[in-house]
Amino acid sequence: MTTKQAIVIFQPSGRRGQVPLGISLLEASRRLGADIEALCGEQKICGKCKVRIETGRFEKYGITSGIENAGPWQDGEGKSISFEDRAAGLRLACTATVQGDLLIHVPEESRAGKQVVSKAPRPIAIDLDPAVRTLAVTVPAASMQNQTADFERLCQILETDHGLSDLSIDLHALRALSAALRADHGKVTVSLWQNREIIRIRPGSAATCFGMAIDIGTTTIAGYLCDLRTGDVVATASMMNPQVKFGEDVMSRITYHMNHADGLQQMRTVLVDGLNRLVENALVEAREIDGLLLDPEDIEDVAVCGNTTMQHILCQLDPEALGAIPFTPAHHRSLTIKARDLGIQVNPAANLFVFPNPAGFVGGDCMGVILAVAPHQSNQLHLIIDIGTNGELVLGSRKRLLATSCATGPALEGAQIEFGMRAAPGAIERVKIDPGTYRIDYKVVGRDAWRSYSRPEQMQTRGICGSGILDVLAELYRAGIVLKSGAFNADHPSERLRKNEQTDIWEFVLAPSVETSIGRDVVITQIDIRQIQLAKAAIYTGCKIMLRRLQAERPDCVKIAGAFGNHVDRTLALVTGLFPDCAVECVSTVGNAAGDGCRAALLDRKRRLEADRIVGQVEYVELTREEDFQMQLMEAIQIPHMSDPFPNLEGIVSEEILNQ
Amino acid sequence: MTTKQAIVIFQPSGRRGQVPLGISLLEASRRLGADIEALCGEQKICGKCKVRIETGRFEKYGITSGIENAGPWQDGEGKSISFEDRAAGLRLACTATVQGDLLIHVPEESRAGKQVVSKAPRPIAIDLDPAVRTLAVTVPAASMQNQTADFERLCQILETDHGLSDLSIDLHALRALSAALRADHGKVTVSLWQNREIIRIRPGSAATCFGMAIDIGTTTIAGYLCDLRTGDVVATASMMNPQVKFGEDVMSRITYHMNHADGLQQMRTVLVDGLNRLVENALVEAREIDGLLLDPEDIEDVAVCGNTTMQHILCQLDPEALGAIPFTPAHHRSLTIKARDLGIQVNPAANLFVFPNPAGFVGGDCMGVILAVAPHQSNQLHLIIDIGTNGELVLGSRKRLLATSCATGPALEGAQIEFGMRAAPGAIERVKIDPGTYRIDYKVVGRDAWRSYSRPEQMQTRGICGSGILDVLAELYRAGIVLKSGAFNADHPSERLRKNEQTDIWEFVLAPSVETSIGRDVVITQIDIRQIQLAKAAIYTGCKIMLRRLQAERPDCVKIAGAFGNHVDRTLALVTGLFPDCAVECVSTVGNAAGDGCRAALLDRKRRLEADRIVGQVEYVELTREEDFQMQLMEAIQIPHMSDPFPNLEGIVSEEILNQ
Repeated sequence: MTTKQAIVIFQPSGRRGQVPLGISLLEASRRLGADIEALCGEQKICGKCKVRIETGRFEKYGITSGIENAGPWQDGEGKSISFEDRAAGLRLACTATVQGDLLIHVPEESRAGKQVVSKAPRPIAIDLDPAVRTLAVTVPAASMQNQTADFERLCQILETDHGLSDLSIDLHALRALSAALRADHGKVTVSLWQNREIIRIRPGSAATCFGMAIDIGTTTIAGYLCDLRTGDVVATASMMNPQVKFGEDVMSRITYHMNHADGLQQMRTVLVDGLNRLVENALVEAREIDGLLLDPEDIEDVAVCGNTTMQHILCQLDPEALGAIPFTPAHHRSLTIKARDLGIQVNPAANLFVFPNPAGFVGGDCMGVILAVAPHQSNQLHLIIDIGTNGELVLGSRKRLLATSCATGPALEGAQIEFGMRAAPGAIERVKIDPGTYRIDYKVVGRDAWRSYSRPEQMQTRGICGSGILDVLAELYRAGIVLKSGAFNADHPSERLRKNEQTDIWEFVLAPSVETSIGRDVVITQIDIRQIQLAKAAIYTGCKIMLRRLQAERPDCVKIAGAFGNHVDRTLALVTGLFPDCAVECVSTVGNAAGDGCRAALLDRKRRLEADRIVGQVEYVELTREEDFQMQLMEAIQIPHMSDPFPNLEGIVSEEILNQ
Repeated sequence: MTTKQAIVIFQPSGRRGQVPLGISLLEASRRLGADIEALCGEQKICGKCKVRIETGRFEKYGITSGIENAGPWQDGEGKSISFEDRAAGLRLACTATVQGDLLIHVPEESRAGKQVVSKAPRPIAIDLDPAVRTLAVTVPAASMQNQTADFERLCQILETDHGLSDLSIDLHALRALSAALRADHGKVTVSLWQNREIIRIRPGSAATCFGMAIDIGTTTIAGYLCDLRTGDVVATASMMNPQVKFGEDVMSRITYHMNHADGLQQMRTVLVDGLNRLVENALVEAREIDGLLLDPEDIEDVAVCGNTTMQHILCQLDPEALGAIPFTPAHHRSLTIKARDLGIQVNPAANLFVFPNPAGFVGGDCMGVILAVAPHQSNQLHLIIDIGTNGELVLGSRKRLLATSCATGPALEGAQIEFGMRAAPGAIERVKIDPGTYRIDYKVVGRDAWRSYSRPEQMQTRGICGSGILDVLAELYRAGIVLKSGAFNADHPSERLRKNEQTDIWEFVLAPSVETSIGRDVVITQIDIRQIQLAKAAIYTGCKIMLRRLQAERPDCVKIAGAFGNHVDRTLALVTGLFPDCAVECVSTVGNAAGDGCRAALLDRKRRLEADRIVGQVEYVELTREEDFQMQLMEAIQIPHMSDPFPNLEGIVSEEILNQ
């Protein structure tokens, strides 16, 4: 090679360009915009980033590609790539490196698909008292008789008319003041933040005041554009968290930061760029649906919640300490930061409210859930389960609040499952197995008709996503295909149950290859079942340990939150033993409660004070510090774990499923 | 022309480049970095920007230049350029435009020379209590027993050890916190602003804390790098205000803003770039002189004062209203702005204190003077005269404070004087005329030896600057060459007095061409004398009117401030009638009092509160609103204006001059 660069082309996307020698294929895909899944954050564990190196002279592209141009084979790759696949040119993109020109095929299952995000806002009870409000005033003109400066004349009127004193003014608002006062005979609209700081001055009587609540999940981001004068959500926008390319879960992102000098900066930039697109999308929606013509600078307040790591990355706070015992966050209390200091393109004087963090693994999103569900205001003992990419649990009432985070692993979100994937088109999200005939029916994201109402080739099934995972386990169990221990019942007559000849592992075919778009059967394996059992056992154990801490037998009510919670069937959740024994009618889903709590803080500034008050009261429970944690976990692995049989369970299940 | 660009070359600087057709030659000089004087801000008044268009084919440069390439002759140019000069190719750079390739000669007198700035700090009495102080603390490590977040653990120690509570933290400091706490076993140095906000965290025991006081004059900028732990000035840096290229005085800059859509932004950028160089220069000086190795981020606090227009431009506040009745500023009270929001490259979390503005023409620099001289704390009636590019007057005592600004015009700074120039090398700064022999002696900036101790060609005289102006008038008057009315005494025997044959105007030769570097005699004309008379009459009248407002006969003391005040001879000032009658021993100079006041605010935060308190007490007097202002002004034009003869005046004058 006479040059230090090589040409790399990704197929089928066609992304191409020059990249420096030595970088990983995954890094090359990032630079060239060809998204490859990287669930484990380049720890060479997940095996999701398999790609195929094409061999030969490609005249069309003017390159000669070959397996030797991807660097030597690494031992770690053997865990995920069989000998045959290796011979066919497969490599792990996180491990193989660019050593020369390459034509790389990214198999469909390795592509980071476009997520279907659904985080619709729910009605919430709010005492409308936003941090930003507008006041229309008429300021007398300056004259030789009244030579008072513009700002001080404005302050006099605000004191006389509204009893406001000791106001400060943001530099950007001050810059607009002089011209605004002279544009419409002294009539101006003042935007006031927390009755303290003037953040915007517009000439005349301006009739708009908007804010944005943003819930930054590890995987998805949801934004709610709200009218601060009415409390209404005028637009909802959502997107994948673009940081996903740096790793699927928070630990992967922390690892990425620790392994790359500018990793934190990179992740922040990508996130902020994403948030700016989110804002734009919300404004477009407001325009198309409500006919509202808004500019980014019309967004005058922002509230953000996310888990502690997401919030740290957004603020570019070092997340390293979050990744190791004792998991210490940089701050507990909320932060108020000028949006411009983070590069967020809303009104430059807008103040961004970042939620308080109770602990390293119980973050602002959990505070949002608490604000929305309000266990601290209730006499009932609440158990709140927020299953996102992490599982967060809150147990408490008016008297006391405990919180913890479960190492569920990402199985319940569909990761570390052989055909696991995000809730993108083609992902199985619901499953039914007839206990009599063992006939399977299912539904995929992006298609309303179930399999039984479709032709096989219409399904275009690619994998299984989080919300389908619990269905699968519960239905397999109900049909007797999976035993109480979680093992497949080898004696079961279902034709879908088989032992994989190559791996010698039992698996169940959810969708035969004729129904899939990947040319292979989509199956759930014995290993997958174990992963799901571990995840649900972790949540169950967390609940149990927290109940014990409060010396309580069972919660008075269970609230299931999170995008996962939106889809989960409460009865199936009980069947699989996701949480301790409890009357099914006490279980309810509360949707994206974190987003709702964030919206509450945007619309009612008292809720911000409340959040800062609560954060000091939340007791973090570190599960792994409990002596009998491992034992409890092992016990919780069986299905179902409940001691009591569920009367009429079948009936309830069917009813719920039929009502889908 | 087939292209929309033309090649323009400036001589003798050799600056060259392509510029778009249609822009003025002055704009071209700005873009190409060839500095041309533009005293009036392109109002086509001052005539200082004369240039000569060279005609012919210049093979060396590959261009053909000609007078027709500078656009048609404009009527206004005739005021400044004679018929002969016009024939020789002279044009006003602000008026002529680029219409084709041009080779332009910039005569020495049109060049914006490098200013010699001398604004040495004077000892000031300060109660050292800076807004920023450092505290060394040891924060206990987080553990599973104490899972408190980094920021909250820090706050606990600051409360326990120092009784500080309710602290906030700047985002940039928070970003450094986590690593700092883990670098040296929890030992950190905290920089605290106003006992309210943590602005910096350094690991270990850091032993430095610096701040910068900056006095932004219309013409010059002075910066004082101070050790906030001792109050010492560790470096002084000064520079020309780079905005001078947009116009010499504040009105010219306001005009530039009004005539150019991005004028304000341009002027701000140029100023901020200049301030960043000033900071760098101060750091270099601190390194070279004191061996202090400081980075810009070691400057943790900044105080800035300037006249109202300069402060508005720095903050990018619209200065338009300052330029017309009733001259309303955007704000009176001080501003505190994050240095990063203005692009000033010091510690990004540093807060910049911008002085309060009493009025449109009485600005933060005047507040600085008041802080430094402290008339408001005295029973003596103070008259403070701050002669910079504007003349600002303060009259008052503990009881009452009046302030005004005199339309002196820039004559006392050397502008609008035929051979007026800034205090650059070659500028006459001191003049003596022997009353017996009428022999003239003088000294120029950049040369210590007076004319009488030099060979003629050593003087390299170019013009006369502000501090020489009053000398000339007083000495001409003492020698009888100028009469009480200000008219030249045509009957005087001095050979230096002559009538210019072309203009028919009387003039006095200060330096014959053998002593000059411009190939011409440097003279003072009858018109110049009138300008100086107007300027000194304006100040005198301002003082008189303010005294009348307080029903006072005369001040108890007179303080002359400003760079001009550093040089002015107090007796000569009385002789010429710069201010009302007063015992000469009551007159003193106070140097760059604005800079001293700025330093006081940097080093003692109580002075900031004091400034904000005083700003509401300063009564602005608009001189032109006084009924008899014009009459008073006309009366004040004579020299000397004093009613009482000065006993032993000659003696005092000689003594002072001899002591130079």
